[in-house]
Amino acid sequence: MKIVCSKSNLLNGVNIVSKAVPNKTTMSILECILIDASEGQIKLTANDNELGIETVIEGNIKEKGKIALDAKILSNIIRKLPDNDVSIECDSSLKTFIKCDKANFTIIGKPADEFTYLPEIERLDSILVSQFTLKEIIDQTIFSIADNDNNKIMTGELFEVSGSTLKVVSLDGHRISIRKVSLKNNYPNKKVIVPGKTLQEISKILTGGTDKEVSVFFTGKHIIFEFDKTIVVSRLIEGEYFKIDQMLSSDYETKITIRKKDFYDSIDRATLLVKEGDKKPIILSITEGEIELKINSTIGSLDEKISIEKQGKDLMVGFNPKFIMDALRVIDDENIDIYLVNPKAPCFIKDSEENYIYMILPVNFTTVG
Amino acid sequence: MKIVCSKSNLLNGVNIVSKAVPNKTTMSILECILIDASEGQIKLTANDNELGIETVIEGNIKEKGKIALDAKILSNIIRKLPDNDVSIECDSSLKTFIKCDKANFTIIGKPADEFTYLPEIERLDSILVSQFTLKEIIDQTIFSIADNDNNKIMTGELFEVSGSTLKVVSLDGHRISIRKVSLKNNYPNKKVIVPGKTLQEISKILTGGTDKEVSVFFTGKHIIFEFDKTIVVSRLIEGEYFKIDQMLSSDYETKITIRKKDFYDSIDRATLLVKEGDKKPIILSITEGEIELKINSTIGSLDEKISIEKQGKDLMVGFNPKFIMDALRVIDDENIDIYLVNPKAPCFIKDSEENYIYMILPVNFTTVG
Repeated sequence: MKIVCSKSNLLNGVNIVSKAVPNKTTMSILECILIDASEGQIKLTANDNELGIETVIEGNIKEKGKIALDAKILSNIIRKLPDNDVSIECDSSLKTFIKCDKANFTIIGKPADEFTYLPEIERLDSILVSQFTLKEIIDQTIFSIADNDNNKIMTGELFEVSGSTLKVVSLDGHRISIRKVSLKNNYPNKKVIVPGKTLQEISKILTGGTDKEVSVFFTGKHIIFEFDKTIVVSRLIEGEYFKIDQMLSSDYETKITIRKKDFYDSIDRATLLVKEGDKKPIILSITEGEIELKINSTIGSLDEKISIEKQGKDLMVGFNPKFIMDALRVIDDENIDIYLVNPKAPCFIKDSEENYIYMILPVNFTTVG
Repeated sequence: MKIVCSKSNLLNGVNIVSKAVPNKTTMSILECILIDASEGQIKLTANDNELGIETVIEGNIKEKGKIALDAKILSNIIRKLPDNDVSIECDSSLKTFIKCDKANFTIIGKPADEFTYLPEIERLDSILVSQFTLKEIIDQTIFSIADNDNNKIMTGELFEVSGSTLKVVSLDGHRISIRKVSLKNNYPNKKVIVPGKTLQEISKILTGGTDKEVSVFFTGKHIIFEFDKTIVVSRLIEGEYFKIDQMLSSDYETKITIRKKDFYDSIDRATLLVKEGDKKPIILSITEGEIELKINSTIGSLDEKISIEKQGKDLMVGFNPKFIMDALRVIDDENIDIYLVNPKAPCFIKDSEENYIYMILPVNFTTVG
């Protein structure tokens, strides 16, 4: 095999497919990127059998062939080459020569036939969504998936299509995040659970704006994202997602409207009094026109007041400050509405159209002083 | 005590003196910043008994007094406050209230009389140097101090004043870095060894340009840097510095001139084949008009040629690539001259006026293939 392409094309391609290279594995072939120039185009692939990414890059094929190269070494070498054309050439002994200007690297590849290609999947059922929107709804929900495997379903996100609406849901037992977006077309109903890891990696490689589209294909076991010259294939998580509609309620006893930035900054200040791993709640006292935040720790205490608009009853309620900050960070609105019932019931941060709903369970607290 | 100052003044002052707060200590008073508003100005001090920093900040003293506050907590709190006036007030029980807008922090301070003030030192013998120049000569030499305490003297830098020249030297047993700068005035000769840690911290707080000056005072046991409204006092390292003139030589068998960027980039590429902790040398083959760099490791090999101008004999010599890169990184010249004798003798990277001299010892290598 011998190919020639620009450093920037090569680096871009390697960066994209590297997202499917596992950090830790005992199978060294999984740490490789396959360069396949055997069929008239230069295709890079990485595949850890859960998540696979394939991308086609521009370049010249001087001699057809394919080779698997260690992803980290390849990416390090390409990154440090001068900005010029790079040639990659391998011989039958797997010796691979990477040349650029006067630099000649020699590394040893692995046989391409050890590599597992992406599964061949029939692409029938698909929806279209802009790269920008897909990235945004992932980033706005991904933080509330569970980070351990105790409940596999919680490590993924629900992707639900009904008519022209795409709804994305994540939950971790303490909170639920829901985002809804409108699609340009109407589609048959679909409901799948996509692994959180897949979504985290896709979010990193989606750079396009609102004018660039992603085709999302659904099959029984897989979801496929196709955009630019890249294909991402991921296994789905099997099982039935939680019935979240039962957990949502539109009843409330207290509704407040607050400037998001003031609320965020104040909680941010409060958390610096909390040592890592310490589960100190932040206590909110809601009264007419004002919310008082209080936190008490071994380091010290903070007491701060913020102006609000209030409807309904006064209330004192405690929350894990991180959960509130996570939700506030991904809301774009300047002012937000928070709906509360009592110190034991979840609070809801949501807009009037319910394009976003962030439900957060309160925590118990003891009132001292 | 009660003081009021702007968040930015306070934060700036806290950041400066925090450089003298040790990362690890069993004496909690050393982790504190002293706020002293007992004498008509607001003075912040931190002092770990080796290095002490004092700075005066603008502000209003509403009530005279002083208090010692944990540096990390204070700095975290100030950083997260709104951009507005901050008041710090403490009562006789050491309870300290930090207020800004509607935020009220309460923390517990320590008694000011537990705090060790900076030593009172007679300031007689001093030189003037610009902030820019002082920062630059530190940054251009500090990387080659020894990072362990086996030889205390190697952990510091020689500061030598003779006439109107300031010479700064560091060495670690494998290399020597020397920088010379001209001073505006003539001064009596001086020779002291300044702890590397002091210089690293000073470099971080020197932000001024060529128009802002630092007064450097010398005493038998201390060096004092005075600039803006800040005073840095450091103990000196006792002992006699190495006789470096004996280690320098101007004889050479081979002199090359090379584009610094090409040389640096090529070595940078080569080092990605070297695993951390592995001591692979880079081998340079110097011939007419060309230098060939070679490195061989378990990961792979690199071979690269760079055009040079050469005087004298051909030569093959091996170096620790990091040592060469460290020197190249702090040289501003586009083209550099390197002087060599043989594969066992040190090489010298220096300019014709010897304003900088970087001496690097070669390493043994075995020529294979």
